[in-house]
Amino acid sequence: MTDLPMAPSRRSLLSMIGVVAGSAAMYHAMTELGYAEGSTFTGPIKLSNPPPGTSVLVLGAGVAGMVAAMELRDAGYKVQVLEYNGRPGGRNWSLYGGDTYTELGGFTQKVGFDPGQYINPGPWRLPYHHQGILHYVNRLGVALEPFTQVNYNAWVHSTDAYGGKPQRYREVQADFQGHVAELLSKSTKQGALDQAVSKQDREILMAALKNWGALNENYEYAKSIEASNRRGFEVDPGGGLNSVPVPSEPRALSEVLGSGLWAAIGAGCNYEMQSAIFQPKGGMGMIGKAMGKELGPLIQYNAKVIDIKQDDKGVTATYIDSRTGGEKRTASADWCVCTIPASILSQIPMNVGGPMKAAINQLPYMAALKVGLQFKRRFWEEDDKIYGGISYTNQPNGTISYPMWDYFSKGKGVVLGAYAFGEPAFIAAAKPPEERIKDALEYGSKVHPQYKEEFEAGVAVAWHRVPWTLGCAGGWTEAGRAQHYDNLCALDGRIVLAGEHASRIPAWQEGAVLSALDAIERLHKRVMA
Amino acid sequence: MTDLPMAPSRRSLLSMIGVVAGSAAMYHAMTELGYAEGSTFTGPIKLSNPPPGTSVLVLGAGVAGMVAAMELRDAGYKVQVLEYNGRPGGRNWSLYGGDTYTELGGFTQKVGFDPGQYINPGPWRLPYHHQGILHYVNRLGVALEPFTQVNYNAWVHSTDAYGGKPQRYREVQADFQGHVAELLSKSTKQGALDQAVSKQDREILMAALKNWGALNENYEYAKSIEASNRRGFEVDPGGGLNSVPVPSEPRALSEVLGSGLWAAIGAGCNYEMQSAIFQPKGGMGMIGKAMGKELGPLIQYNAKVIDIKQDDKGVTATYIDSRTGGEKRTASADWCVCTIPASILSQIPMNVGGPMKAAINQLPYMAALKVGLQFKRRFWEEDDKIYGGISYTNQPNGTISYPMWDYFSKGKGVVLGAYAFGEPAFIAAAKPPEERIKDALEYGSKVHPQYKEEFEAGVAVAWHRVPWTLGCAGGWTEAGRAQHYDNLCALDGRIVLAGEHASRIPAWQEGAVLSALDAIERLHKRVMA
Repeated sequence: MTDLPMAPSRRSLLSMIGVVAGSAAMYHAMTELGYAEGSTFTGPIKLSNPPPGTSVLVLGAGVAGMVAAMELRDAGYKVQVLEYNGRPGGRNWSLYGGDTYTELGGFTQKVGFDPGQYINPGPWRLPYHHQGILHYVNRLGVALEPFTQVNYNAWVHSTDAYGGKPQRYREVQADFQGHVAELLSKSTKQGALDQAVSKQDREILMAALKNWGALNENYEYAKSIEASNRRGFEVDPGGGLNSVPVPSEPRALSEVLGSGLWAAIGAGCNYEMQSAIFQPKGGMGMIGKAMGKELGPLIQYNAKVIDIKQDDKGVTATYIDSRTGGEKRTASADWCVCTIPASILSQIPMNVGGPMKAAINQLPYMAALKVGLQFKRRFWEEDDKIYGGISYTNQPNGTISYPMWDYFSKGKGVVLGAYAFGEPAFIAAAKPPEERIKDALEYGSKVHPQYKEEFEAGVAVAWHRVPWTLGCAGGWTEAGRAQHYDNLCALDGRIVLAGEHASRIPAWQEGAVLSALDAIERLHKRVMA
Repeated sequence: MTDLPMAPSRRSLLSMIGVVAGSAAMYHAMTELGYAEGSTFTGPIKLSNPPPGTSVLVLGAGVAGMVAAMELRDAGYKVQVLEYNGRPGGRNWSLYGGDTYTELGGFTQKVGFDPGQYINPGPWRLPYHHQGILHYVNRLGVALEPFTQVNYNAWVHSTDAYGGKPQRYREVQADFQGHVAELLSKSTKQGALDQAVSKQDREILMAALKNWGALNENYEYAKSIEASNRRGFEVDPGGGLNSVPVPSEPRALSEVLGSGLWAAIGAGCNYEMQSAIFQPKGGMGMIGKAMGKELGPLIQYNAKVIDIKQDDKGVTATYIDSRTGGEKRTASADWCVCTIPASILSQIPMNVGGPMKAAINQLPYMAALKVGLQFKRRFWEEDDKIYGGISYTNQPNGTISYPMWDYFSKGKGVVLGAYAFGEPAFIAAAKPPEERIKDALEYGSKVHPQYKEEFEAGVAVAWHRVPWTLGCAGGWTEAGRAQHYDNLCALDGRIVLAGEHASRIPAWQEGAVLSALDAIERLHKRVMA
């Protein structure tokens, strides 16, 4: 039996699963069974009393590098950080109105949003169980607000279903769940499960399915007040006279299945996307900013590392000004924590052993695209009553996410008009930014016809063109990880690597934090040995 | 076939359904199929040019009364409002540290919370589709913030299951959904559904179940990375070396069904509890306060209406000071919008016709209990990593809800330690407040052992002892509504009733708003006729 029908909708179904589970399904396909969740953070690290004067050079002021730098500094190490960008954070990054961003290939975008409007090109969510990054968020006093992963009134859209007319999430969710409940109750009544389920359990199962699937007295998922209490009404109940509600008509099972839209209703159940889930007020970049402020002059900005050398006395990094080039400078220390992404590090001469070198060189980086679109008015709220959350489409833009702040405010807002992975993200990276924005507008207008009328300004980040990462995150294969992961993470002489790529929580800031803590714990042990 | 097994867990199962769907399931049982959702609000009302000087007396400065008063005033009517309490809002009410509340029977509670800490004894949620109340919230500039209905890391607890040890919501949710998916895929493979589902649909169904239920390659819900990506891991993935995750072991089907905890995982799918859902910053009472401020001197506070008389010229209400009694005063107008709850109104002499009188007299009011508990520290966040949302228990306290504001803050917090309906709420109303609080602590400590150590102050509102409502909301029966509802809502001479009890969205503020708008539209039509 094949997993999927060979009908025309196959591609559509698959793309929808990828889109919705978002990172999860993609990592799942690309990595060793999607180890993309969770945290083993067990509280603040304690590194006791290194020999006075012991120094550590940290390469990269992203989350991993800055966590390492803070903890090493606090433990008594002498710390210096070199950072390619003119700001702290790395992929912890928000693009605000007025910012400028130049990508590989030379395209420069001046973000035309109004002041205060922003998107997060990189990470945008903080799951409740990512206790490592949450520890630093709280330690540094970064204010959080809820992230809305699931919005039952958002749209679920397929160009291949319902004539391209978007459906409400709640309708798809209720109809799928209701039909599943009805089918299973039917099987149960027919005795198909008599071997698998005991008699008493069958009775409980029937009650549970009725409750959970909004079935009627005959265990059918049908046009009813019960079903409308999930999927919404044809006419809502009202007040006073003439206020009787009219139930809505559920979609037939065959329609629900054939639409492929069922693939869009699972993301909120994923461990890494479950509520409660948070975002920093004012943009994810607030975390990087706070870490940078905490480290102050320990960070040397605009420093492009071009060579890393170690010997039995220490480590020396050679760097130039990342904006102007110019003369070579060096920074030296007893030890080095290198958080430069493998995609970049593989191009920098560094005298580590073959196993680490091979691990760095083999690691591919995943593609991702984010497009931010500022609109004159918040039509998704005003017209569609969608307050935050995410709409899904089988088009290459993947998801449309609404601002999860300033709800009900008048005036402008920035929508995440595309968040795509894999092939669509690669294709977008091959186009200039304005075409990526144009595409996002074209796709988005299939879901929101108001798009073209209301559009004001856009910005597009294709991660394979981000000069300092060349991809959004390390894309471990199962075979690659089996062969190389431990070699990537193991201390090589005086150098240890850290970052999300040196973790089993790829593409999440939690991976960067835990990787950094593990790396400096091992480094400290070596120092103390 | 019975709906439910006659096993000892029957009562437990039923109570859990009631508790979780909360108002929904209870209203569902008590009213005509749970018309407890939705909105037919279609935008601001327009009442054009009443004859100059036409006056309306509004009884009650709750949401319905104040909406009526604002709109009538804006249309040009001369408006006066009489209100029993010394504050606006009615059931739109927050109790803050330092407030005092005296219930029927004379018990006075001084709320011992810290300044700024509060609970909402009445409504606490604003669904996205309650566009009527949201209109006024936005018109008056009341700031909103997200309400967290579903928290996957909250507890689900039954004294009859797992030795009374609370389970994580995500585990129960994933296990139920996974087993349902496995059972249905089994039935499908065995051909049990060959008549109900076409061959092509069956293949799609299998793919959908696999995706949705986190099944493995053999369509089993089993210990796996996939299942742990829903229910959580035994050991989460980590960073650096020694970071391999250990999957958790799902509960067996029979355990999942027998626990009854499956009844706790549905609330977030209910139309009225779906995300996005909101609350006013600083307490639900902010809405009432804003409305009261808007109406200013039009509201006469502390006015207890003791008689309502109409004749062919107008309506006169007689009232006394609700605190001190004292001399009778009167307020007269051409027309009257009466929003006094039927439970109170049935005790006030009023010369309306038999049908309206009968409608008022037959309406029972529902029981509800809310208990707020201030704790010295936010142990639910610090120890349990529960940030907002709701835990469920089969104990009489029903639900435990965590503050959905000031997340991650240090110091104190107020938990909604009981939110109960029906029998447990009636029983609580028969006890003095301190015993209700003691009970809530006792039940809650089964879920949170930290309760007794950390408790500081409590307040308990049993709605049948609230002097100005004698219950939480009108408890329409299906038969009662069929016979009396239209008579309750119809204009009787110069008097029209409004409030949640005169709507098909009982116990929701949206019902009050829509009822008020419908009532004044009909009143205006009569005036203009």
